Amino acid sequence: MSQAVGAAVIGAGYWGPNLVRNFRGSSDWDLVAVCDLDEDRAKRVVGARSTIDIETSLEAVLARDDVDAVAIATPAHTHAPIALAALAAGKHVLVEKPLADTMESAIAMVNAAREAGLVLMTDHTYCYTPAVKYIRDVVASGELGDILYIDSVRINLGLIQPDVDVFWDLAPHDLSILDFILPGGLRPEAVSANGSDPLGAGKACVGYLTMPLASGGIAHVNVNWLSPTKIRQMVVGGSRRTLVWDDLNPQQRISIHDRGVDLTTQAIDGLDPEARKATSVSYRLGDITVPALPEREALSNMVAEFADSIRGKRAPVTDGDAGVRVLSVLNAVGESLAAGGAPIRPQDEADEFDKLAVGLPVAG
Amino acid sequence: MSQAVGAAVIGAGYWGPNLVRNFRGSSDWDLVAVCDLDEDRAKRVVGARSTIDIETSLEAVLARDDVDAVAIATPAHTHAPIALAALAAGKHVLVEKPLADTMESAIAMVNAAREAGLVLMTDHTYCYTPAVKYIRDVVASGELGDILYIDSVRINLGLIQPDVDVFWDLAPHDLSILDFILPGGLRPEAVSANGSDPLGAGKACVGYLTMPLASGGIAHVNVNWLSPTKIRQMVVGGSRRTLVWDDLNPQQRISIHDRGVDLTTQAIDGLDPEARKATSVSYRLGDITVPALPEREALSNMVAEFADSIRGKRAPVTDGDAGVRVLSVLNAVGESLAAGGAPIRPQDEADEFDKLAVGLPVAG
Amino acid sequence: MSQAVGAAVIGAGYWGPNLVRNFRGSSDWDLVAVCDLDEDRAKRVVGARSTIDIETSLEAVLARDDVDAVAIATPAHTHAPIALAALAAGKHVLVEKPLADTMESAIAMVNAAREAGLVLMTDHTYCYTPAVKYIRDVVASGELGDILYIDSVRINLGLIQPDVDVFWDLAPHDLSILDFILPGGLRPEAVSANGSDPLGAGKACVGYLTMPLASGGIAHVNVNWLSPTKIRQMVVGGSRRTLVWDDLNPQQRISIHDRGVDLTTQAIDGLDPEARKATSVSYRLGDITVPALPEREALSNMVAEFADSIRGKRAPVTDGDAGVRVLSVLNAVGESLAAGGAPIRPQDEADEFDKLAVGLPVAG
Amino acid sequence: MSQAVGAAVIGAGYWGPNLVRNFRGSSDWDLVAVCDLDEDRAKRVVGARSTIDIETSLEAVLARDDVDAVAIATPAHTHAPIALAALAAGKHVLVEKPLADTMESAIAMVNAAREAGLVLMTDHTYCYTPAVKYIRDVVASGELGDILYIDSVRINLGLIQPDVDVFWDLAPHDLSILDFILPGGLRPEAVSANGSDPLGAGKACVGYLTMPLASGGIAHVNVNWLSPTKIRQMVVGGSRRTLVWDDLNPQQRISIHDRGVDLTTQAIDGLDPEARKATSVSYRLGDITVPALPEREALSNMVAEFADSIRGKRAPVTDGDAGVRVLSVLNAVGESLAAGGAPIRPQDEADEFDKLAVGLPVAG
Repeated sequence: MSQAVGAAVIGAGYWGPNLVRNFRGSSDWDLVAVCDLDEDRAKRVVGARSTIDIETSLEAVLARDDVDAVAIATPAHTHAPIALAALAAGKHVLVEKPLADTMESAIAMVNAAREAGLVLMTDHTYCYTPAVKYIRDVVASGELGDILYIDSVRINLGLIQPDVDVFWDLAPHDLSILDFILPGGLRPEAVSANGSDPLGAGKACVGYLTMPLASGGIAHVNVNWLSPTKIRQMVVGGSRRTLVWDDLNPQQRISIHDRGVDLTTQAIDGLDPEARKATSVSYRLGDITVPALPEREALSNMVAEFADSIRGKRAPVTDGDAGVRVLSVLNAVGESLAAGGAPIRPQDEADEFDKLAVGLPVAG
Repeated sequence: MSQAVGAAVIGAGYWGPNLVRNFRGSSDWDLVAVCDLDEDRAKRVVGARSTIDIETSLEAVLARDDVDAVAIATPAHTHAPIALAALAAGKHVLVEKPLADTMESAIAMVNAAREAGLVLMTDHTYCYTPAVKYIRDVVASGELGDILYIDSVRINLGLIQPDVDVFWDLAPHDLSILDFILPGGLRPEAVSANGSDPLGAGKACVGYLTMPLASGGIAHVNVNWLSPTKIRQMVVGGSRRTLVWDDLNPQQRISIHDRGVDLTTQAIDGLDPEARKATSVSYRLGDITVPALPEREALSNMVAEFADSIRGKRAPVTDGDAGVRVLSVLNAVGESLAAGGAPIRPQDEADEFDKLAVGLPVAG
Repeated sequence: MSQAVGAAVIGAGYWGPNLVRNFRGSSDWDLVAVCDLDEDRAKRVVGARSTIDIETSLEAVLARDDVDAVAIATPAHTHAPIALAALAAGKHVLVEKPLADTMESAIAMVNAAREAGLVLMTDHTYCYTPAVKYIRDVVASGELGDILYIDSVRINLGLIQPDVDVFWDLAPHDLSILDFILPGGLRPEAVSANGSDPLGAGKACVGYLTMPLASGGIAHVNVNWLSPTKIRQMVVGGSRRTLVWDDLNPQQRISIHDRGVDLTTQAIDGLDPEARKATSVSYRLGDITVPALPEREALSNMVAEFADSIRGKRAPVTDGDAGVRVLSVLNAVGESLAAGGAPIRPQDEADEFDKLAVGLPVAG
Repeated sequence: MSQAVGAAVIGAGYWGPNLVRNFRGSSDWDLVAVCDLDEDRAKRVVGARSTIDIETSLEAVLARDDVDAVAIATPAHTHAPIALAALAAGKHVLVEKPLADTMESAIAMVNAAREAGLVLMTDHTYCYTPAVKYIRDVVASGELGDILYIDSVRINLGLIQPDVDVFWDLAPHDLSILDFILPGGLRPEAVSANGSDPLGAGKACVGYLTMPLASGGIAHVNVNWLSPTKIRQMVVGGSRRTLVWDDLNPQQRISIHDRGVDLTTQAIDGLDPEARKATSVSYRLGDITVPALPEREALSNMVAEFADSIRGKRAPVTDGDAGVRVLSVLNAVGESLAAGGAPIRPQDEADEFDKLAVGLPVAG
């Protein structure tokens, strides 16, 4: 299948136009239709002098032979029914984050895709930026050493959503990035969440999320809709080096700091057990390196990966399982908030997957 | 008493030299002696061609008639015995932060000063910077509106202390600033603390501290000894405006952002009670203002306030009570850490103060 | 004429795709054709599933009745013949900067448009950014006082052009902005240019341009193709306030500094003439204000202005005359470089315009 | 001579207190006296409880046996008479920048020191910062390749000096740094200066200085007293790498950019001479490296070098010759300003030095 894959975008609202632009601009894809209940909105997204079809019925889209795959950019609670219908119709599926509004729905989507042998991809857009790809590679290479802490700050003046709080709105970005860069994915020991609703909006508008990691480190996420300053920063503190990602600084998005603390604990013979550890602390004050990164739009990489996973009959790098892991943490956030910030252990999603369905192989 | 007040600095280690320099450079003060168990260290701090006396005995310092006040810059656990001896000898006392190592000691110091009618001042240095003074004034003026959230970040590559964790080392700065700028002082409803010791140093090296405030807002403090990048930033989010303090940006330390979210809840007649609230959200995108601030060294202001409170027979703006309130939160941090991050209500220090002793009047 | 204006874009190379995207996205315009000698390049720019016509002949484009206006994005030396042909065919014309490669050609274009009563617009894109529009307004309002100096820095790692030096490549941006924001346009008293060709590329790759202004101030432009750091900064120093525009800082593109030097010269009676001036210097250290600016793509504003000037039968804000003034300075740069940096007075373009042709009225 | 060298500071005005503090804090030195015509000013600089002598007569200072060296921080036009008297009295001499107010005076000082075999040092303070020392080393190492351009910007709201223009006030810093980092010192082919006096202060308050270098590169200096923003930045563009020094960014003062333009000119056989050069341009987009620099006060290093050169009987790294080279460029600036910006070749100072006097050996 070296020819372009036929695609339809479902949902022409907030995110849909970005998907339309990128499917349209990609030689991997042939965007044949855009579907929205609001026909005028869909027409505006497609623009004049175009032969892309406008559809207002999901059934009509799924019945088309020239549609191999659908991209779903509708409200979160509609993801599962649309995706399940599309999978049942034999279409590959890309879903906006979050994958679904409940763990149950998300697991049903994963199982349905496994059984049908179709690609189910979560649009964790940030994972397709050159910066996050670089972070994943540098963590995997061991250059940073052990991960000691990860601090992620995502604050700006944000739209107060009618249906979700600031954790559900913003934290999926941070959690999907953590899932992508941590070897083995995001599987925190516990989740402690503190939220605040100082305006009386009826939901948390400021949120703090702390997650001890199995490795001994800690991850912390700060999300905030009320901040007039915009910050998109993540610090990955390692035992050897520390990486700082400042996404709003295009000239220096990533810097690697070769400075830190070295702690050596030596066993000393002949002393009583309590005193057997002598700790030696030393400090390194080395250089900072700012790697050259390519500039390429994340969504362009994302739609390329979607096409490539379909052609290669393999799981995409942000597959449905990744979407389920993110949801699992978001669920624990809700429980911790309800328990006044007490630590909650997230549900292990793997227990829920259909053991008989094999799923697509992971990319080599 | 318009002549200079006689002072002695006790402790010539890490912080002592800064005190020596500022007492020496102030026309309010006559620095007559520097005291340290290590005579050579004290001599080095004073330098050559000086007639300032070197003392190695606390008793000798306290016996001097030309010493009206002492500044204590020794390890935290020695603050209380030295301060109590100085107060007993009729000397005014300035103490480095933290005021003491236990609440009991700190309260004893406050009570002793009250009974003796002497000044007991905590060196909360940051409260004497032009920036923090400006923040206190702008909060008090109501220009920011209600305080919705305060985020304080104090991270850098720090010396891992042998005796204290990162909370006790760094958070007193943030807590003393919060105590100074919040009307009525820092009196959080609860304290939730999460720490991490990813290096196995035997104590928290990375810490997060969340404090719901009685006003409905939330304060959060992030302290970290392992960060190769240095950040000193506090955001005070208000319902009308938001203030950002970036202490490492001398050209723009403080900026006030006239942008934010307005939430209006209106009662609507004739509907059932549940539906009577209609919420309207609006966004302001106004200007940013960067106020011109004087540049003056905080310690210089601090020693001036110490002299002024002695001369005016009044409590200094960072008195012993402020030191006790900060300790009260630090104590709750320890309890919350031990309880896995559960929220702990700090002890109300006022219950412990000697009701009979009147204390010095607060500055008008 | 409330319906969309028919447009054709001529040239699908470096800048053409940006024009295509913006004409296409505008409800003011109906982009009916894209013309390029390289048909495949034109097709790639238009993309699949489009009914926009591809043309490879200028004559064919100019013969179309559905083309009211053309946008020319071809190499500079072809601007004049294409524009003159288009004007002769009764089409309105938009031309990329620089307007032409010689003053003679540019003046011929202006005169042809005047005589035909058609719009001739120079695409001085930066003049359509919200930031530059704001600067123009704030200068006109008198808020900055008299203009004392303007410093413009435009440096980055740039493509070494085969046919032009760094002045012709980059300085048109700075010069067109100066022309736009200075009341009466850019009409320097003299131009002194120093260039350097340290790599032996056969043309200046680093350039400095100094222009005393009639008002008594000075403008300076620094352009550089060899700088690994990218800077886009302009400082407009006024006698009352100073404006700083940092185009790479989206959170604070413009800041207005209410600080500066006040110099008062007073006449003093009874002294000899030489001594009659007593100068008093004072300094203001006021606040900085960062105005909120809308975020809108400059090219979108530019194509809207093109449509609006055609409909209103008026000169656009960056008309052909502006293009000629910029060329006049570029010519003087060349002469100054040849004269070792000696100051050269630019040609007054108004002398060359056809006095009989009236031209379109300027926008009210 | 391992004991401390006896010093006197002459002049307790603007810069004198900094010298006093650093001589006092150095174990290399014994500061025995401070001399000023204004006795109270000198007393205030020394402070209370000190046995440093206050002198109000130059003769008295020069007559003291315990004074081995003097540091002169008086107005520029008094440098020569004081220094010549001190050298005649057998004292080593340190002089604030500029070395003197005329070339003739400066050359007389250099010759007097040579003949007396005494150290004459110019206080080019910036040359003793860790950053400038690093730049000198990295240029010398060849890591940057050939120097293509150097851009230095030194602008801030400055005191308008009664006696000197902005070039004489600020440019000595830039010129002394260029002299220090360029192999062989600063010896430009020509100097072109443009100044502006937009306030009518009677002297240039904004200045631009262009200097083609013998190596083929170009140096440019921008000085400005009227800028409300403070910038201290120097870019050293090399054929292999480019160094950026931002002195107001303590966390990243120096960055080295491994990106740039490579131009290869190849001789091609068999073609006519004109066409024999085929130029190939390529671009490197490599990493940025931020070296770790020690933090040490420049003046502390400077007084150490003064002591060390006296003890080692060698020329200091910023000797009188360096001061003369800086003056030579400042003189050419004045001539170029008078000639409307025309390029002026600076006087070669070496022609003026006394050929018979040998001078101190240069440090190995």
